[in-house]
Amino acid sequence: MLVQKKLLHLPEPFVTESGVALKRPQIVYDDGGNPDGPVILITHGGFADQHVAGRYCAEDPTPGWWDGLIGPGKAIDTDTFRVLCMNALGSMYGSTSPLTMNPDTGCRYGPHFPPITLIDMARYQKAFLDAIGVEELHLVAGPAMGAMTALQLAALYPELIGAAVAVAGCGRTPPAALAANQFIINVLTMDPAFQGGWYDLVRPLAAMKTVHQFLRIMSVHEDLLKTAVWDAVHEGVQAQAERGRAISRYLTATLDIDVRDRDPNCYITLLGAINSYDLGRDVGDYEAGVLRIQCPVLLLSVDTDTVYRLEWAEEVADILNTRMAGQARIGLIDSPWGHLGSIKETEQLCDFIASFVAAL
Amino acid sequence: MLVQKKLLHLPEPFVTESGVALKRPQIVYDDGGNPDGPVILITHGGFADQHVAGRYCAEDPTPGWWDGLIGPGKAIDTDTFRVLCMNALGSMYGSTSPLTMNPDTGCRYGPHFPPITLIDMARYQKAFLDAIGVEELHLVAGPAMGAMTALQLAALYPELIGAAVAVAGCGRTPPAALAANQFIINVLTMDPAFQGGWYDLVRPLAAMKTVHQFLRIMSVHEDLLKTAVWDAVHEGVQAQAERGRAISRYLTATLDIDVRDRDPNCYITLLGAINSYDLGRDVGDYEAGVLRIQCPVLLLSVDTDTVYRLEWAEEVADILNTRMAGQARIGLIDSPWGHLGSIKETEQLCDFIASFVAAL
Repeated sequence: MLVQKKLLHLPEPFVTESGVALKRPQIVYDDGGNPDGPVILITHGGFADQHVAGRYCAEDPTPGWWDGLIGPGKAIDTDTFRVLCMNALGSMYGSTSPLTMNPDTGCRYGPHFPPITLIDMARYQKAFLDAIGVEELHLVAGPAMGAMTALQLAALYPELIGAAVAVAGCGRTPPAALAANQFIINVLTMDPAFQGGWYDLVRPLAAMKTVHQFLRIMSVHEDLLKTAVWDAVHEGVQAQAERGRAISRYLTATLDIDVRDRDPNCYITLLGAINSYDLGRDVGDYEAGVLRIQCPVLLLSVDTDTVYRLEWAEEVADILNTRMAGQARIGLIDSPWGHLGSIKETEQLCDFIASFVAAL
Repeated sequence: MLVQKKLLHLPEPFVTESGVALKRPQIVYDDGGNPDGPVILITHGGFADQHVAGRYCAEDPTPGWWDGLIGPGKAIDTDTFRVLCMNALGSMYGSTSPLTMNPDTGCRYGPHFPPITLIDMARYQKAFLDAIGVEELHLVAGPAMGAMTALQLAALYPELIGAAVAVAGCGRTPPAALAANQFIINVLTMDPAFQGGWYDLVRPLAAMKTVHQFLRIMSVHEDLLKTAVWDAVHEGVQAQAERGRAISRYLTATLDIDVRDRDPNCYITLLGAINSYDLGRDVGDYEAGVLRIQCPVLLLSVDTDTVYRLEWAEEVADILNTRMAGQARIGLIDSPWGHLGSIKETEQLCDFIASFVAAL
């Protein structure tokens, strides 16, 4: 499937919760599927981009990150639906972020980019839909930060959303995630090369490499590590040394690729937004915040995800189902991948999502 | 209880598995309890020291790290037993390590200190016991790296060991620990201030602060974090921001103290040794390696320890009990502390260890 990558400027400045007006706000987004069909919005994970499915041209080597789920005849069928996915506010792939130019200064925002919240992100998605004239979403779905965005949209704009799928989702950022995200922010800002965010040609590379090794540790369950780099080593006097080398290769293998186009200021902006997430924050009460969601919700957790654990999805489902039995459904994905199962376990994701979409 | 801190030099050079002779090897150790009683050896955790129980003088503000377990009338009764604990080879509290002087050069070993293994550490403990004339241990016990050392001693010197207690223990370093330890080594060596280990006055402080925040994340379970810094915040519009500040304080609170007397080269040496640990390594077969242990073994795991999980203790117990039913016992400590439960849950540790010692 071919999809189009498009650029849009919002007609008005975007004012953040903190009161900063971002002028000439820009949005990069993917637009694919049936242009006249009902609209499905996909919201991407924290460090991912808008390229969710299909290819930009026949020669494009890499399909989108949820390509297994989305396409002609797939769980999210692009013969039926129009599928949109925009690069989130603050993300480094083209939408307004610390990397984009501040029209007032002619320079990049850099560390002067305002802190944003998950609510800002959801409002930015809404402004995007308004700008392209979409008044109704058949479904909004996403993994991790995308799951937060989907639920936040459903809470803020119940009339807009027909249904929501939150993979590795929760109603508020769990303590373990708060700590891990704050740790990453601390690592980045402590690197002397960070220079208060005014790095330019020389980026804080040691910190970025630290962060990406940490993400590998936190995002993948030990079971997979054991299979991949532990069981593969034959018993013997040298086994433990070989295991060490295998683990080291595992941690550093894709590091140069992983950090190549990543921006530390954007990471800090995104993680700050994730750590602001609590569906009750703007109304002062968690349960009341969750109960704004009116649509059917499917929450999918990965059994080996040690951060976005099942209980955080159940917390949301329990609140909704106490009011209206069956509004929220829970699915547990069986995977050795941990958090990354939210991207990797295509087959199970398809089964759960296809039957959820079929029942709408 | 008052204990004595003593310094000893081994009569002969100590030759590591890698073939390096460490000349004039030195050992700092604590010696307490009944000087004529049967000897109990305590082996300390990775970044801990030999000060396991009691105080050095009446004014000593801090008792040893397992003081709740060890003392007159306690689970390990110092009225009955003599209790010894030595600072491990490679550790930064006085025994031979990267911090001590290389007699050949007159300078600190620094990064020229040879890589050591868990077997080297166990052999160093044995050399210490030989030097002070101890030919029999009633019990050897320790948490984490100390648990590895205890089991390694029991496997290498079955005639020496009467019984072993391994808290947060395993027979080989689990994959998640291999990865976490390798990550720490990578963080330290990537810091430009590390200078290949030849830092002196300026230490790689950013890396050390990164490592200690990481250790807080990995060593403590989310349940405790939730109670300590999440539930304490009142619901409301500012709740999530306050949670963020509380988590940040939690990560950085004791950082200056935590890294003050720590040495990056020693960390790398110790973590390398921990990552070498596999009871089957020297015999080429895990099961055969474990089966060298002849004494009763008590393995205690903490239910919320996500790295040194119960299954890694069960692996050892299953091998021993298949040969001789009841040789190994497992106890599960109920704690919100995660890995740190191996130090913090004094009462449960006492109950398990007192009944194990009474039955010997």
